Amino acid sequence: MSAHAFPPSPNLALDELVNHRRRAGQPLIHLGFGESQLPVPDFLADRLHAGAARNRYGQIGGEIDCREAAAGYFTRRGLRTHADQVVMAPGSKPVLLALMAALPGAVVLPRPCWVTYEPQARLFAREVVGVPVPPQCGGVPDPDRLVPALRAARRAGLRPRSIVLTLPDNPTGTHAPAAVVRRLAEIADDWDLLVISDEIYRDIVHPPGDAITSPAEFIPDRTVVTSGLSKSLALGGWRIGFARFPDTVDGLALQSRVIGLASEIWSSLAGPMQEVARYALSEPPELRRHLAASTRLHGAVAGAVHEVMTGAGASSRPPTGGFYVYPDFAPIRGRLAKMGIRDSATLERHLLDRVGVAVLGGHHFGDDPSALRFRAATSMLYGESDEERWLALESTDPVALPHIERLLDTLSDAFHTLTGYSTRSPVVALR
Amino acid sequence: MSAHAFPPSPNLALDELVNHRRRAGQPLIHLGFGESQLPVPDFLADRLHAGAARNRYGQIGGEIDCREAAAGYFTRRGLRTHADQVVMAPGSKPVLLALMAALPGAVVLPRPCWVTYEPQARLFAREVVGVPVPPQCGGVPDPDRLVPALRAARRAGLRPRSIVLTLPDNPTGTHAPAAVVRRLAEIADDWDLLVISDEIYRDIVHPPGDAITSPAEFIPDRTVVTSGLSKSLALGGWRIGFARFPDTVDGLALQSRVIGLASEIWSSLAGPMQEVARYALSEPPELRRHLAASTRLHGAVAGAVHEVMTGAGASSRPPTGGFYVYPDFAPIRGRLAKMGIRDSATLERHLLDRVGVAVLGGHHFGDDPSALRFRAATSMLYGESDEERWLALESTDPVALPHIERLLDTLSDAFHTLTGYSTRSPVVALR
Repeated sequence: MSAHAFPPSPNLALDELVNHRRRAGQPLIHLGFGESQLPVPDFLADRLHAGAARNRYGQIGGEIDCREAAAGYFTRRGLRTHADQVVMAPGSKPVLLALMAALPGAVVLPRPCWVTYEPQARLFAREVVGVPVPPQCGGVPDPDRLVPALRAARRAGLRPRSIVLTLPDNPTGTHAPAAVVRRLAEIADDWDLLVISDEIYRDIVHPPGDAITSPAEFIPDRTVVTSGLSKSLALGGWRIGFARFPDTVDGLALQSRVIGLASEIWSSLAGPMQEVARYALSEPPELRRHLAASTRLHGAVAGAVHEVMTGAGASSRPPTGGFYVYPDFAPIRGRLAKMGIRDSATLERHLLDRVGVAVLGGHHFGDDPSALRFRAATSMLYGESDEERWLALESTDPVALPHIERLLDTLSDAFHTLTGYSTRSPVVALR
Repeated sequence: MSAHAFPPSPNLALDELVNHRRRAGQPLIHLGFGESQLPVPDFLADRLHAGAARNRYGQIGGEIDCREAAAGYFTRRGLRTHADQVVMAPGSKPVLLALMAALPGAVVLPRPCWVTYEPQARLFAREVVGVPVPPQCGGVPDPDRLVPALRAARRAGLRPRSIVLTLPDNPTGTHAPAAVVRRLAEIADDWDLLVISDEIYRDIVHPPGDAITSPAEFIPDRTVVTSGLSKSLALGGWRIGFARFPDTVDGLALQSRVIGLASEIWSSLAGPMQEVARYALSEPPELRRHLAASTRLHGAVAGAVHEVMTGAGASSRPPTGGFYVYPDFAPIRGRLAKMGIRDSATLERHLLDRVGVAVLGGHHFGDDPSALRFRAATSMLYGESDEERWLALESTDPVALPHIERLLDTLSDAFHTLTGYSTRSPVVALR
């Protein structure tokens, strides 16, 4: 891909299109953007204000108090970490970019995967090896297909040196079970691959109390973990990310290259955001309560949308993390074909123009374009106002709230009309 | 340059080294880092707090109210601008990076120039053509040498397609007169070069009331202007930058490529920072007063350091913008050679280890490494505490304040000891 003709990320571009159409008066249900639309609690706004005095550039990788808080965050999750292993960044996106620039060789990506990994790799002329995800979960290459893919890549003259996992996953809204992660870790070890484990959805798992298994638990010396506050705390627009590097000579050498790149790309995470990160990553009780409420809401609505999709005839993995559902309309391919829907691009277009639902087709995520899959981001359904969103956050049964139930009904009707599949109202089945 | 061995920006790296040595107890006068060390006024901190609710990713290039304020900022400076020409970014650094990625061909840089242009260009395998600055000012290639350099570059198989100007300049602390900018604009037009005019120091010119001339006044169709709030408002650690693209088909196509890259590199400028930018770029009276006071302080201290350097035997262009002095110790090369000082690297090292003064040698800016030049950033001399810095900001004669006078005396004595050149106390000459 030439940087001279670099299209915007489809995720962000669709969001702009939807906002444009809505301003023009077109009613749309927006399931197209991976943004947690929840309001900012006062305790975070107050930290931002308190951080105003941090107007110095400071250390490239973040100030020590902020990196110590990030180290504590990882340590409490079973990955003993010291502050020197941490790099703070304005979002996990730039730190992933710097990793793509710093790592040699080809990179292995799951298919489907987040829209940005591949363009970032291409920007630095890195070859990409895509490997389909297994039937039971997304975010990881199918271990049964990974070794053959690596062999084929080598035969084709590529040198795979790194692999990206997303735990939990965007776009599939699932996370790989420990046994799958362990097998992938073994393969990474055998093939001398560095693992980039994108764990930005780590704190959003369903059902509550469940947890992901990080490859860093099996192969800490070859795993870089990236994360951020955009998803768990609904702070996408505040741009706070961080990464944990292996505590080894090679790991810290990689970190040093990333810091070198950071100094030419972003200088440092904004000081006030470091104060927010220092506070949030130390996880005081009010923050943990807020996170638990958010996660419960994400899980309830993702579950409801999953029922809408399966009720309309799709097959779909049950959501186990993040705020996404990734249905596959293969079971009613014949019926959709009569409407001119033959692939994920025509499905996406039909849903936007005819059904009034914005989603991102699977092809944007590197999935087989002929498959009838899309990603539904379910985190845009919590309300039109902060008042409605606070209500949703505080409810123990958010899908029963009138403003959410209404949206889900509309969504259900829309898909029912599209597929003619379900005879009952799927919303009845939701609760 | 391979991204696999990417050293940190020398500017940021030296700042970390100085802070490390100071914590270890070594007294140092820090002239090594281009940071305006002034405190944050309450009216900016309050805007940050007010911006907390902006937690959405929003538009890649910035929200409309923020871009409109930036358009007003340019329009008031004689460059009629509408919001659609503007891109907001987390600092001007990432937007310059995206420009380097988006532009084809080789890039022409002044020598010396800011440390980051060349590494950014190299990251995308862009060739660099360095052209020395003229005797009277920095930040621009000498117009008399530019055309021969362009011819030589073409003969060598390069295709120069863009040129970077810095107005006012880092590292020389000067800005090119209108006549020089006009000549450069003509050459850019003749040679079909896109001009990147880095005007991040635009609002810091000496004497007060003076103003730079932007190439966009002569060749608006081929000039991209970049800027930010890091320098004028001492908000380096808040990471707020922006760019203005030509209002032409080609200009907006370039902007669209930059936005595409932005979507994969930084997503958007943090929402609360957009609220700060919206406010600051609308330039209310209290902000203009603060800016005027800051600029007066920068000019006074840069002038005093300039006198220290010339008093110690250096030649140096009088500072006319920013907060830098760029002395050349060629006049006393013989004396310095006896101390083992033969080039800018040994001069920088000697000053750091023996004299207790941290500066960045000219070689870091792409200057002739055998020259005895360095950049002294004078914005680090305003005080050790916010109280001292507020005093400096509010004083009509800041170099007469005891805490600043003391530092200037120490600096003067240090250089006197080094060069043995001056017999009078340069500080007497300061006022």
